[in-house]
Amino acid sequence: MQQLPLDVRIADYALFETYLAGPNDACVHALHSVARDSAYAFIWIWGGAATGRSHLLQACVNEADATGSRSAYLPLDPAGGLAPAAADGLEACALVCIDDVHRVIGYAEWERRLFMLYEGMRQRGGRLVISADRAPLHCQFGLPDLVSRFSSGATFHLRSLSDEERVSAMQLRAKYRGLELPNDVAHYVISRVARDTDGLFALLDRLDREALVAQRRLTIPFVRDILAR
Amino acid sequence: MQQLPLDVRIADYALFETYLAGPNDACVHALHSVARDSAYAFIWIWGGAATGRSHLLQACVNEADATGSRSAYLPLDPAGGLAPAAADGLEACALVCIDDVHRVIGYAEWERRLFMLYEGMRQRGGRLVISADRAPLHCQFGLPDLVSRFSSGATFHLRSLSDEERVSAMQLRAKYRGLELPNDVAHYVISRVARDTDGLFALLDRLDREALVAQRRLTIPFVRDILAR
Repeated sequence: MQQLPLDVRIADYALFETYLAGPNDACVHALHSVARDSAYAFIWIWGGAATGRSHLLQACVNEADATGSRSAYLPLDPAGGLAPAAADGLEACALVCIDDVHRVIGYAEWERRLFMLYEGMRQRGGRLVISADRAPLHCQFGLPDLVSRFSSGATFHLRSLSDEERVSAMQLRAKYRGLELPNDVAHYVISRVARDTDGLFALLDRLDREALVAQRRLTIPFVRDILAR
Repeated sequence: MQQLPLDVRIADYALFETYLAGPNDACVHALHSVARDSAYAFIWIWGGAATGRSHLLQACVNEADATGSRSAYLPLDPAGGLAPAAADGLEACALVCIDDVHRVIGYAEWERRLFMLYEGMRQRGGRLVISADRAPLHCQFGLPDLVSRFSSGATFHLRSLSDEERVSAMQLRAKYRGLELPNDVAHYVISRVARDTDGLFALLDRLDREALVAQRRLTIPFVRDILAR
């Protein structure tokens, strides 16, 4: 992966293996192919909070890394101070994943830079994957050409997981960390804390640490104690 | 292709080779793969009038035929009397292409039948391609599950062609018919008749017939005479 001149962290757990595809298997399948294949591709994925957009984009980059492709992951956050220059030179990568593109709607210089990136990737036959919280046609970019360009690829709408699928997703993540999360504990957690997936994963991180420190397995009494603190 | 118990004509010119991909090349590429591959796939294509939705769906079926796959093309038209029973048994096909699905929005029995078709194709690992005039999320189906199912695949928005691309599209079609359509004649036609692609193709059919009858080549004076009648 290209070293970007900014602090962009790729989570090491962000793999296709740790993403519960569930209702989004068509999207996962397409991204997996794009991460491994070398043909030109442009994919837009969009969905609500905690549908795992960043996880999937980072999984693409991790997968491309594993196959020796030069790739880059860039989460957009102009309000946080990210300057358009951060996108300079990305065209040289075989795979570029741009996260949270809705955050630059209305930033003229960012829009212009993304347009050039799209054209550059297309001309070079690279692979571009973009995520946003909405479909391309609903991005009211100031640059009309950007809407038409971004509408031209395969678009996937990520759906939220059901409670049962969230349990499976937590167990998949726990298993990757070498942590056993029994069914009853997973259901206990999901029924007592916020149902959003990000919150569950943050809680899982905490339970993992506490279990390690206490040298305990995850049981309902143990989890109840942690939650009560 | 399966013999359907209704009068569905597949145009013999409806091939990938006669569709000018232009701005829709990502979609054409994906459909071409789906028509040839045997893995489960679900693709939704949508776009305005005369963006070539039917052409592409029929091209998929023609392509699958050529590779020996059992396939079916079904254009929906309940207002024209098409009954939901027309979809019976389609799950047995390796590839099913459903055209104009927006026309059955609000027809409860059709919606139920399409839901079963989707589930059946998925379970059997078949390939389903659907076209509409709008994106899946904008189809206000009475059956909410249908919206979520239909939003789960790769979605492609077909864009209209520019005038230059329309000229190329006409020439591509003319060439397939063995008719030479010089640049100046193509531009003359496009500047003097309705710009919509369907109208242009209908005119091309007429010019082809007239040229054949008169044993003439297509020239601007000849075309002017035809248009003046």
